[in-house]
Amino acid sequence: MTRVGIMGATGYASADLMRLLLGHPAARITALAGRPEKTLRLPEMFPQFAGRLDLAIVPADPAHLASACDVVFVGLPHAAAMEYVAPFVAAGLRVIDFSADYRLKTPGLYEKVYGHPADEANLRHAVYGLPELYRDEIRPARLVANPGCYPTSAILGLAPLVREGLVAPGDIIIDSKSGVSGAGRTPKLLTHYPECNESLQAYGIGDHRHQPEIAEQLSRVGRVAVEVLFVPHLAPMDRGIESTIYARLLKDLKAADVADLYREAYRDEPFVVVRSEPPSTKHVLGTNYIHIYPTVVGGRAVVSAVLDNLTKGAAGQALQNLNLMFGHEETAGLK
Amino acid sequence: MTRVGIMGATGYASADLMRLLLGHPAARITALAGRPEKTLRLPEMFPQFAGRLDLAIVPADPAHLASACDVVFVGLPHAAAMEYVAPFVAAGLRVIDFSADYRLKTPGLYEKVYGHPADEANLRHAVYGLPELYRDEIRPARLVANPGCYPTSAILGLAPLVREGLVAPGDIIIDSKSGVSGAGRTPKLLTHYPECNESLQAYGIGDHRHQPEIAEQLSRVGRVAVEVLFVPHLAPMDRGIESTIYARLLKDLKAADVADLYREAYRDEPFVVVRSEPPSTKHVLGTNYIHIYPTVVGGRAVVSAVLDNLTKGAAGQALQNLNLMFGHEETAGLK
Amino acid sequence: MTRVGIMGATGYASADLMRLLLGHPAARITALAGRPEKTLRLPEMFPQFAGRLDLAIVPADPAHLASACDVVFVGLPHAAAMEYVAPFVAAGLRVIDFSADYRLKTPGLYEKVYGHPADEANLRHAVYGLPELYRDEIRPARLVANPGCYPTSAILGLAPLVREGLVAPGDIIIDSKSGVSGAGRTPKLLTHYPECNESLQAYGIGDHRHQPEIAEQLSRVGRVAVEVLFVPHLAPMDRGIESTIYARLLKDLKAADVADLYREAYRDEPFVVVRSEPPSTKHVLGTNYIHIYPTVVGGRAVVSAVLDNLTKGAAGQALQNLNLMFGHEETAGLK
Amino acid sequence: MTRVGIMGATGYASADLMRLLLGHPAARITALAGRPEKTLRLPEMFPQFAGRLDLAIVPADPAHLASACDVVFVGLPHAAAMEYVAPFVAAGLRVIDFSADYRLKTPGLYEKVYGHPADEANLRHAVYGLPELYRDEIRPARLVANPGCYPTSAILGLAPLVREGLVAPGDIIIDSKSGVSGAGRTPKLLTHYPECNESLQAYGIGDHRHQPEIAEQLSRVGRVAVEVLFVPHLAPMDRGIESTIYARLLKDLKAADVADLYREAYRDEPFVVVRSEPPSTKHVLGTNYIHIYPTVVGGRAVVSAVLDNLTKGAAGQALQNLNLMFGHEETAGLK
Repeated sequence: MTRVGIMGATGYASADLMRLLLGHPAARITALAGRPEKTLRLPEMFPQFAGRLDLAIVPADPAHLASACDVVFVGLPHAAAMEYVAPFVAAGLRVIDFSADYRLKTPGLYEKVYGHPADEANLRHAVYGLPELYRDEIRPARLVANPGCYPTSAILGLAPLVREGLVAPGDIIIDSKSGVSGAGRTPKLLTHYPECNESLQAYGIGDHRHQPEIAEQLSRVGRVAVEVLFVPHLAPMDRGIESTIYARLLKDLKAADVADLYREAYRDEPFVVVRSEPPSTKHVLGTNYIHIYPTVVGGRAVVSAVLDNLTKGAAGQALQNLNLMFGHEETAGLK
Repeated sequence: MTRVGIMGATGYASADLMRLLLGHPAARITALAGRPEKTLRLPEMFPQFAGRLDLAIVPADPAHLASACDVVFVGLPHAAAMEYVAPFVAAGLRVIDFSADYRLKTPGLYEKVYGHPADEANLRHAVYGLPELYRDEIRPARLVANPGCYPTSAILGLAPLVREGLVAPGDIIIDSKSGVSGAGRTPKLLTHYPECNESLQAYGIGDHRHQPEIAEQLSRVGRVAVEVLFVPHLAPMDRGIESTIYARLLKDLKAADVADLYREAYRDEPFVVVRSEPPSTKHVLGTNYIHIYPTVVGGRAVVSAVLDNLTKGAAGQALQNLNLMFGHEETAGLK
Repeated sequence: MTRVGIMGATGYASADLMRLLLGHPAARITALAGRPEKTLRLPEMFPQFAGRLDLAIVPADPAHLASACDVVFVGLPHAAAMEYVAPFVAAGLRVIDFSADYRLKTPGLYEKVYGHPADEANLRHAVYGLPELYRDEIRPARLVANPGCYPTSAILGLAPLVREGLVAPGDIIIDSKSGVSGAGRTPKLLTHYPECNESLQAYGIGDHRHQPEIAEQLSRVGRVAVEVLFVPHLAPMDRGIESTIYARLLKDLKAADVADLYREAYRDEPFVVVRSEPPSTKHVLGTNYIHIYPTVVGGRAVVSAVLDNLTKGAAGQALQNLNLMFGHEETAGLK
Repeated sequence: MTRVGIMGATGYASADLMRLLLGHPAARITALAGRPEKTLRLPEMFPQFAGRLDLAIVPADPAHLASACDVVFVGLPHAAAMEYVAPFVAAGLRVIDFSADYRLKTPGLYEKVYGHPADEANLRHAVYGLPELYRDEIRPARLVANPGCYPTSAILGLAPLVREGLVAPGDIIIDSKSGVSGAGRTPKLLTHYPECNESLQAYGIGDHRHQPEIAEQLSRVGRVAVEVLFVPHLAPMDRGIESTIYARLLKDLKAADVADLYREAYRDEPFVVVRSEPPSTKHVLGTNYIHIYPTVVGGRAVVSAVLDNLTKGAAGQALQNLNLMFGHEETAGLK
C-alpha cells in the first residue's frame, strides 16, 4: 500500500486526485498539508468529501510527511512549489509536482518565462511526467514534473507527426479551449459566473506560459527546434480541453495515412484513443483518457485532441505517474 | 426628453438599465456616477458598451447631478444607498432606488432586518415601486423604492388570491430559484464558475431579507397579517427567477376558477401574462414581463411565476416607474 | 466475481452503471443487450467507452443471458420493462429493474398511474430497492425495483420525521429540481439545448408519476396514510436533484432536535450524510451519496436533500442493491 | 412605416428578428407565414411572445404577402428557400433571405456545395448583404442574401488585411466556436442538452459549407484567389461565435500597425468595434455588434472576432439591410 501525502490540498487538481485515490486499490492518503494557516478539515473546503475523507489539513512539515508518506503530490502555484519540493526531496520523499517549476529543462528558460530563479539542483534530476513519452525515466524518478494541461493535449496530439519529421517545425498552430476549472479556485471577475457563463473568449494570445513547455517537448520529440503558436480560450464549462492543431505537412499524406500513423503510435497506450471522428470533451469527462482525431485538409494535418484538464491534464496523469513509480499496474485507480 | 443619471453604475442592475435606456425614445443618460474612486470609462467596466455608450463614471456630486439630470437611479448596497439618496432628494432630484433602504414601511422593521437605522425622513414619503399595485402613488413620487427581485415574483404571484381573502394568510410557502446575477458582481467562492455551475442549492432558508418585504406587501394587499415561508435557491444560469408558490385555499376553488381570477386581475397590465401551462424563465429572458401560471392541487393554490431578475426584477421595473413618473407611455423602451 | 448483464444499454442510467462497474472489484459486465434492432458496439452509442468497454449490444435472449450472467439490470421504459423482466426471472436470473413497473405495491395503483396492467405475479415478490429502508429484504431478493430518482430524495429526506410520527401526514410539500439527464436520451424540444439552457421551469404540477410512489413508501414508513404535494422542476444542468421539503410539525421541535434525529437515524448509513448547512447538488455529483440538511422554520420542518439522479437516483443505488444481493461489501465500487 | 413579412417564422433567427422588430421605430410586422401546415399562433411556437406579438402564422401566399408587406424575410433551409424567394420576387416583393441560396456567385459553386441547382435568374441580381462591404449595392437591391454567421465573423475579421494584400492568400486558418442555437431548432442527439452541455467539439473539419462562402468573399475583397482552412466547433452556450483567425503576414508589421489598420478601416462603421484586448462573446450578446481584436505573433496576424450568431450573424444584420433598403437610419432598432 503506497502512502500518499498531498501538499496544497485546497485546489481543484488536488481534489480530483483525492477523488481518484479513494478508488485506488493500492494507494492510500495518509496526510493532507497546506501552507501555514489554521488547520481545517477537508470537508470544510470540499463538502463533497463529507463522510468519505474526513482528514485534517495541517501545516506542512517535511519530517512528519517523510514518516507518514512514501510520496507527496505538491499542488501549489509556481515558485511557491519549489519552496516545498526541495525540502521534501531532501527528506527522502518522492515528489510529483503539479506546478511548472520543474518542467522546463532548457537552461534559463524557466527564469525567463516565470520571472523567478529555477531550483537548479532538483531541476537537473526532475523527469517530465508524460508517461507516453518518458515511461522508463518516470519509474525510478525521485521528482516528477507533472505536465501542464494544455501541453498534454498538444504534445500527444502532435508527437506521432513530429517524431517522424512529417510536419514543418515552424508552422504549427495550436488553438485550445479550456473549461473554467483550469483557472484555479481563487474567485476573480474573469471566472465570476455571470461573466464567463454563456461566454467564450481568447486570452494570452501568443504569450501563454504553456507555449515554451509545448515547444521544448516537441523539440525533444522531433530532435529539431520546433516552434508553436499557441492560443488558449476560456469556454463555459467546468472541465475539459479541446485542442485543434494545424501543422503543415512536409509530405503528401492522406487522412488515412495519418490515422494509421496515430493508431500505430498509440497502439499499446492504455489511455490514448485514436478516434475516427472529432471527439467531444464530454467523451473524456472525469477520466484519464485522451481522445485524438487526426485528419488532413489541403496539405495540413488537422488534429483535434480532447482531455479532462483536471484528470489526464493533472490529477489522473499524476496518479498514472505514481503507478509507474511504485510498481502498480499503470491503470490502477484510473479505469 | 427625460435626463437620467445613474449612481452606482458598476453593478448588473445598472448595466441592464443602460441597455434598456439605449432603446428608450424619450429618456437619455446624461450622467454616470460612482462612489469616490478614480474616474473610469464605462466600457472599462462593461465592454459591452464599447462603441455604444462611452461615458465617464465620475464621483457623485448632488449639485452636479441636479443640474444634469431630472432623475437619478441609485444602485448601491443597502445602507450605502441612503447616504446618497438623502442628499439627492434634498437637491431636488427625483430618485428611483434599487436598494432595500426605502422598501419596508412597518416602523422599526428596516432596522431589525438590516441592522442599520432607517432614513425615516425620506422613508415616510417613499413609494414602493410596484406599478401593478401602486401606479397612482408612483406617478407623483419624489422617491421610489424599487422592489426586490424575489418579492416582485412572489407578490404578483399571490396578489389576486390574497386580495380576495381566498388563501390562509399563515399557510403560504414560496420556493424560489434564481440565476447567479442576483448575487451581484463581486467575485466570491459561492459564485465562482466551477463552484456554482452544474449546481443547485438552497440558501437563507427562512431568514432571507426578502421574506419580510414579501410579507409586508401581501399584508397590505390582503388587509390582514400575512406570513410567508420563503426559501430561495441558486440555480446555474445567468438570469431569471422562478417562484413556485403554495397557498392553502379557504374556499373550494377549481383550477379554472383561479385562472379566471388571475386573468381578470391582470387583464389591463401590460407586463403580466397569465399562462395556461407552467412558464420557463427563458420565456421572459431580457424582458420586463412576468409570466404567471396558477393552478389548484388538493386544496392548495399552486402558482409558478417567472421573471428576469435584472429586468422586471430590477432595471425594467425601475424604467417602468420612470415612465410613470415622467408621463411617458408606461411601456416606452420596454416592449 | 458477479457476472452482470445490462438490458437496455443505451440510456443514461445504463451508461452510468457501466462507468461504476468498470471500477467494481467483484463484478464484471458480461453481456449488453437491447431491444430487437441491429447489433452495434457500445462506443458507437457512447463514445466515452471507446478503449474501455468495447462490447456489442445484442438482441436480448433470456437463455443466453441466464448462462452468461448472474444478474441483469433492466433499463427500459415502464411497460416495456416487464416484457423482459418476466422471462428473465423465469429463466432463473436475478433482476434489478430501473423502471417503475415493480415499485407500486398498492393493489391497482400501478395500472391507475401508468395506464397499463401490472405484472402481478412478479410484483408480488419484488422488493423496493431502497437499502436504507429495506436492506434485509433486498439481500435475498430475486427481483428488485430500483426506486425513482425524485422518490429517493424525498423518502430519505422525510423518513426520520415520518417514522416518528412528527409531521402532519396530509401537509407535506416537495419542491424538486432536476438536471436534464433525468428526462432521458431521446431528443425533444423541451430538452433541446437552446430551449432548456438558461431556463428553469416547473412541470407536472401535482400529477407527476413519482408522487404516488413517494406517498406509498412514506405511508409504509409512517404506518399511516401519507399524502404529498410534489412539484418537479427542470433545471439547466446535466445531473443532480435538489428537493426542498416542507412538512408541518406536530410537536414543538427546534432545528437542533431535528438535526439530532436525522444524525441518529442515518448514523450507520454509508451513503447518507447529514449536513449542517444547505448542500449543493455539486457536492454529490457522480457519487452515490445523498446529503440532507434538515431545519425548522415557523412550525415547519424544512429539509433540503440532494443526490445525483443518475447515481444514487439510479445506477449507484442499483449497484448498492447488487452488492447486498451478492454478498459484496455494500460500498464496493461506490466509494 | 415599412411593412414586414416573415416567411419561416418558427426558427431562431426569425424569433430574434421579431424581438428586434418589436423595438424598431419605423418597421412593423404585418404577416407571419410558414410552410403548408396548420395555422398556429406565434406564442404557441415561442411563448416569449405571449402578450407581445400575438399573430397567426399562415401558409405562405405570394399575392397576399405582396399586398400586406413591403419586404419579406425568408428563414428556411437552403433549397427550400428558393421555392419561396422566386415567387416573392416575381410578385414584386423585396426579399431578405437568411439561407445560403443566393450567397455564392461563382458559377456552379452553389450546386457543387449544396447539391441542388441554383436559382440562376435571381442569383444574378442578388446582393450579398454585408453592409460593411456592399452598402451601396444593398440600398437598391430587390433581393439580399443575408450572410452566414461564421462568414460574417471571418470576413470582417480579415477584410482590412486582405484588402491591402498584407497576408498570404493561401495561408489562412479560421478556428471558430459557435453556440448551439446555430444548429437550428430541430431536436437531435448532437444538440440534446445532456450531450452538448459541458462539451466542446470540432465538427465539419475542412468541409463545412461556410468555407467556400468565406473564400469567395475574401477573394472579392482581395482581388486574388483566397483559400481558407475553416474549422468550426460547437460550444456549450446558447448564442455567440468567436473566430480566431491566423494569417501569415507578407510584410513585417507590428501589432500596433495592424491595430491602426483595423481602426482606420472600421472608423465609420456603426457596428464594428476594434478592441485592444481579446473580446468575449458575451460582450456582444443580443446585439448587432462585432468586436474585433487584431494582433501579431511571430509573423502571423492573429485576429479574434466575436458576434452574436443570431443577431449580427443573422437577424440583426438582416435588419441593418432592411434599414439600408428602405432609407431608415442604418442603426434603427439596433442600438
